[in-house]
Amino acid sequence: MPTTSARTRVRRLPELANHERSMLHAIVDESYVCHIAFSVEDGTHCIPTAHWRQGEYLYIHGSNGSRLIKALKSGVQVSVAITLLDGLVLAKSAFSHSMNYRSAVAYGHFQEIHGQDEKLEALDMFMEKIATGRKDEARRGNFKELAATSLMRMPLTETAVKVSDSEPADKEEDIDLPVWAGILPLMTRRGMPIRADHSPCGTVPEYVKSWAAE
Amino acid sequence: MPTTSARTRVRRLPELANHERSMLHAIVDESYVCHIAFSVEDGTHCIPTAHWRQGEYLYIHGSNGSRLIKALKSGVQVSVAITLLDGLVLAKSAFSHSMNYRSAVAYGHFQEIHGQDEKLEALDMFMEKIATGRKDEARRGNFKELAATSLMRMPLTETAVKVSDSEPADKEEDIDLPVWAGILPLMTRRGMPIRADHSPCGTVPEYVKSWAAE
Repeated sequence: MPTTSARTRVRRLPELANHERSMLHAIVDESYVCHIAFSVEDGTHCIPTAHWRQGEYLYIHGSNGSRLIKALKSGVQVSVAITLLDGLVLAKSAFSHSMNYRSAVAYGHFQEIHGQDEKLEALDMFMEKIATGRKDEARRGNFKELAATSLMRMPLTETAVKVSDSEPADKEEDIDLPVWAGILPLMTRRGMPIRADHSPCGTVPEYVKSWAAE
Repeated sequence: MPTTSARTRVRRLPELANHERSMLHAIVDESYVCHIAFSVEDGTHCIPTAHWRQGEYLYIHGSNGSRLIKALKSGVQVSVAITLLDGLVLAKSAFSHSMNYRSAVAYGHFQEIHGQDEKLEALDMFMEKIATGRKDEARRGNFKELAATSLMRMPLTETAVKVSDSEPADKEEDIDLPVWAGILPLMTRRGMPIRADHSPCGTVPEYVKSWAAE
């Protein structure tokens, strides 16, 4: 069950707190990269890594020998942040400027996923996020590749979601200043796919054709 | 002087390490949001916030009462990560998939900037990053606003930069598989500016006109 803790109670601009699970899921699913904070002997680290979601769990993977994976396996407490920036909000006074964004922060501990079948299944989910259907085309991981890779997941229970989606809010005294006010939107764009030299010239998969079709 | 420490030596895929200061600066300047990791009594946190750069310093600002600002003022060690995702790299085997990205991680401690003039100057730099020339149009912060806000900066000395910009690298045994291989590019797009209702109808500043001009 999702909970609100002292850590996840939104204290700055609490009116921006969002408690819809669908919003949390949308932020996690729309983004490809999260940032994981953890502390070990040599200090606190912030490491970016690819992620995906299945149900109420956030998944990541990595090489067994990586600093991040070794730390997560030690059971260290982590904070995972995912941020989508939607625009710059230009107000008439410097201090009323802000940003529109969707932000999720989760606290917890990662658990390792053992078992070759469970690992393959989790990696298939990752592939589905990247390109629907591709898991049935690309060669699946073999025993050696799977053994060198760690699969980790974290329950999305202790989470804080904050969404800012608004026009500039100027103070009464600034409303009539002759300064442009509004939103400069930012979004992620998908560029035209670039075929590798060793890619077959035949049929192009639907997920490649539709990648930049907007 | 920039240094390489045990923390910033790139151990995973060391061939992707980039030691050009210009690359570090470009990553910091192109992005609007960084993630700051720090540990306090109730655990390790990962908090997104807006940033800007001046010379070899990373700047942030925030409300005096915020958890992040209070932690930074206590002198806690931080790790700041900035990540730009440039594309998904689709190889012929699941395990050879990767991402193209530019990533910077900095370690250190934030210092507070005191003095009204110094704070105003730092905030002007932030405004210049957002919109060239706007610092001379929008109302500057007044004494009360400045007093409620903390300006912090961190030297970019202990840093690690990693850049991945490559085609899919398939193993010899997979080269001839009949699977599409290539890059699905991702980039940040600037959308058409949205004028606020209380914005004057007259002249539109150059930085608004040129925002989505590409």
